[in-house]
Amino acid sequence: MMMQDRFSKQIAFLLELDKMKNIYRQTLVLHEDRPENDAEHSFHLAIMACILAEHAKEEINILHAVKMVLIHDVVEIDAGDTYCYDSVGYQDKAEREQKARDRIFAILPEDQKEEYSALWNEFEERKTPESKFANALDRIQPMLLNYQKGGISWKKHAIHAEQVEQRNLPITQDGSDNIYELAQEIIALAKQEGMLL
Amino acid sequence: MMMQDRFSKQIAFLLELDKMKNIYRQTLVLHEDRPENDAEHSFHLAIMACILAEHAKEEINILHAVKMVLIHDVVEIDAGDTYCYDSVGYQDKAEREQKARDRIFAILPEDQKEEYSALWNEFEERKTPESKFANALDRIQPMLLNYQKGGISWKKHAIHAEQVEQRNLPITQDGSDNIYELAQEIIALAKQEGMLL
Repeated sequence: MMMQDRFSKQIAFLLELDKMKNIYRQTLVLHEDRPENDAEHSFHLAIMACILAEHAKEEINILHAVKMVLIHDVVEIDAGDTYCYDSVGYQDKAEREQKARDRIFAILPEDQKEEYSALWNEFEERKTPESKFANALDRIQPMLLNYQKGGISWKKHAIHAEQVEQRNLPITQDGSDNIYELAQEIIALAKQEGMLL
Repeated sequence: MMMQDRFSKQIAFLLELDKMKNIYRQTLVLHEDRPENDAEHSFHLAIMACILAEHAKEEINILHAVKMVLIHDVVEIDAGDTYCYDSVGYQDKAEREQKARDRIFAILPEDQKEEYSALWNEFEERKTPESKFANALDRIQPMLLNYQKGGISWKKHAIHAEQVEQRNLPITQDGSDNIYELAQEIIALAKQEGMLL
């Protein structure tokens, strides 16, 4: 096609992101018997960021948080989804994902490559108000779905309540008091109902 | 669960939106042989709004446009996806969708019900800079995917180039010069390559 260079790079990046529709996660969608993919997960986090922004622990720029959740899993196009309780997969996760970040965001024009790589790094580092809130959303969303599905993915992998607590409580606490409370409640109910060991 | 009323309404709304993962469209995803769903489509439009904002015809508030594309198809949870070239389905589309809007956004706390119903109406009315841009994205995204897939859904429904032009050219022109040009180019190529009658 004959598009100008800048616009055509942006369109190429947006077409590349179609691959997120085929990266499957451990979480199941609620109303079908199939795993959720990264595009659906990112959609869910983006609307959560808009609707729940008032519950962020510190004041946030909502657009900044939304952009971050929209691209936080882009690297899985190359690096795949590493199940969060898979300690072997986690050994080289950072290296695989940084390589993917460098390839994928380089499809964009230079200034946007810088902006979106920085957003991805910010999400990973969890130091800013937006990234703490975004990470809290990223932790609570699969817990919510998984609890609604009877704990199916926890049971499948024989996950212990302590694993879910260690992984999710400090990070939700950092991002939002209400989300932290919700995470505690889900874990308590899931234990009570035999979904977690 | 024991959440406070406001927060629990927000969570209920976010869980309701999981149903968007099961509303299938006519467009296929690029790298699997299956239709795209509304959650994936909305994800794609949201990141397009962020990346392509500079091409909007008038200056826009990006967050406003992003929120709009995230919720523009929420009504299809009740009303279903009406294929854009289905003139029979279009007869009662507005009525079905308004009913759905009233039910679904009413799950939210009152102020957010107002905000998001208004955003949905704004998208439909196409009068503001954000809604014109959002509608241009909503038209170009399936054209891009469909062209990349060899025009499969145009061929399936024996769509004429004039139908695609009438449906998409005025609206993309209203939202963005570059997106309008891209739409023209896709139609010209699709005609040339026998994807459109």
